[in-house]
Amino acid sequence: MQQDAPVIQGGGSLMISWQVTNQRVLVIGGGNVGLSRVNHLLEADAKVTVVSKELCPELEKYEALQLLECVEKREYKDSDLQMYETTKREQMMTLDLEDDENRKIIDDFEKNQKFALVLICINEHKIARHIYFKCKQLGLVVNLADDPQHCDFYFGSVYRRGALQIMISTNGKSPRLCNRIKNFKIKPMFESLDIANAIDNLGYMRSTLRSKVDPGEDRKTVKERMHWNRQITDFFSIEDWCEMDHDKIDAILSKFPELPTPE
Amino acid sequence: MQQDAPVIQGGGSLMISWQVTNQRVLVIGGGNVGLSRVNHLLEADAKVTVVSKELCPELEKYEALQLLECVEKREYKDSDLQMYETTKREQMMTLDLEDDENRKIIDDFEKNQKFALVLICINEHKIARHIYFKCKQLGLVVNLADDPQHCDFYFGSVYRRGALQIMISTNGKSPRLCNRIKNFKIKPMFESLDIANAIDNLGYMRSTLRSKVDPGEDRKTVKERMHWNRQITDFFSIEDWCEMDHDKIDAILSKFPELPTPE
Repeated sequence: MQQDAPVIQGGGSLMISWQVTNQRVLVIGGGNVGLSRVNHLLEADAKVTVVSKELCPELEKYEALQLLECVEKREYKDSDLQMYETTKREQMMTLDLEDDENRKIIDDFEKNQKFALVLICINEHKIARHIYFKCKQLGLVVNLADDPQHCDFYFGSVYRRGALQIMISTNGKSPRLCNRIKNFKIKPMFESLDIANAIDNLGYMRSTLRSKVDPGEDRKTVKERMHWNRQITDFFSIEDWCEMDHDKIDAILSKFPELPTPE
Repeated sequence: MQQDAPVIQGGGSLMISWQVTNQRVLVIGGGNVGLSRVNHLLEADAKVTVVSKELCPELEKYEALQLLECVEKREYKDSDLQMYETTKREQMMTLDLEDDENRKIIDDFEKNQKFALVLICINEHKIARHIYFKCKQLGLVVNLADDPQHCDFYFGSVYRRGALQIMISTNGKSPRLCNRIKNFKIKPMFESLDIANAIDNLGYMRSTLRSKVDPGEDRKTVKERMHWNRQITDFFSIEDWCEMDHDKIDAILSKFPELPTPE
């Protein structure tokens, strides 16, 4: 058998959905870039702390509306990076992982104390770099605006419609083109589709299938359920899913494990 | 002035491009899920280490073709997580950050020694959970397949065409729908467009503008350059950019700082 080389095209990025729901994130800098970061974070339900001597009017408004967990109107200081940490890092390293109580300590540190991300959005390069290295020393994930060499990750153009999110990246080649692809290609395509309803229908179907129609967590049941779910998702068009309601989904579920007869 | 609440819709994810170029990533498990992870990683130019007693045929092939940095055909052991670490973590914590040599030590640890990501793709839940907590204890970023509660991030459906990458997510509601949106909506839209050429043209324009036509790194020059770049990107349609070549770009650049006269 011939050994064909796999078709793998390098030069891309690893696109991922970072989980920040109810997690703490630190934004240093309260200007327009800071605002854009905060908007992304609030859409993902993060608990946002902003450290900045001055805030742009929108962030002032967010503070007044209590959308932010904490606002410190002053210069950054190194202790900010560990603002919510109560468990000592050195102590963490020696915990016995087979003990459930110790796992809870690690979980609590990860999910409630440590910043899930640090976003540096200030113009003073020297301070920004200092913060970057301080973050790295502490093992924190960091993005330094306008300084790709000092970023664990980049942001991109994101189209949002209900639970649907689409991120467009040209791997730094043309951020402006990303924006235009979003506005002139992606947006018009979804404007005529009630895709939020399609996602709601499919989410309802999936959860009802698991909770009522075909419950069970053994390997065979899970496999059968997932197989049917894939088949039924493919059975109807995207447009069909956009137009259905929960009654129609219930009717489809009543046929399980059969598929509907084509109309 | 009325204080309108900003339109921020929660419930989303933070979509980001993780930077793994030349960075080390550990994949534990050599089955189909492991393969899919490895494919994503190779597209992003990561240095991949796989630990798994058995490998699926494709991964065997990757190993033979030397696409992977390292393959360990054996059971996982805890020391794997620090396989390439030579600098001691405790030592890192006490380094003086104002010393450039110390910054280099931190940089080297971050970019060459520490795993940028750990991807756990094994069926044994108990072992998988143990690895997860061990990673968290070490402050490593981790994804445990099929266990959303133990993931710092999720993967999504990604459409790729040259430098263009588009990720589709329904925030876990219907991964199958993501796939269908990719195949039946996104893919056909870009099939008739030479978008790779558009991105190449815009990248060439941006870099030539900076290196030859309007060099300089002072604030005013950078601002003027970025402004013109945005204007010219918007001046032509996406379709226009797809059809141009470098000669045409040179002709456009020769008009700088003017915009072309509409034809």
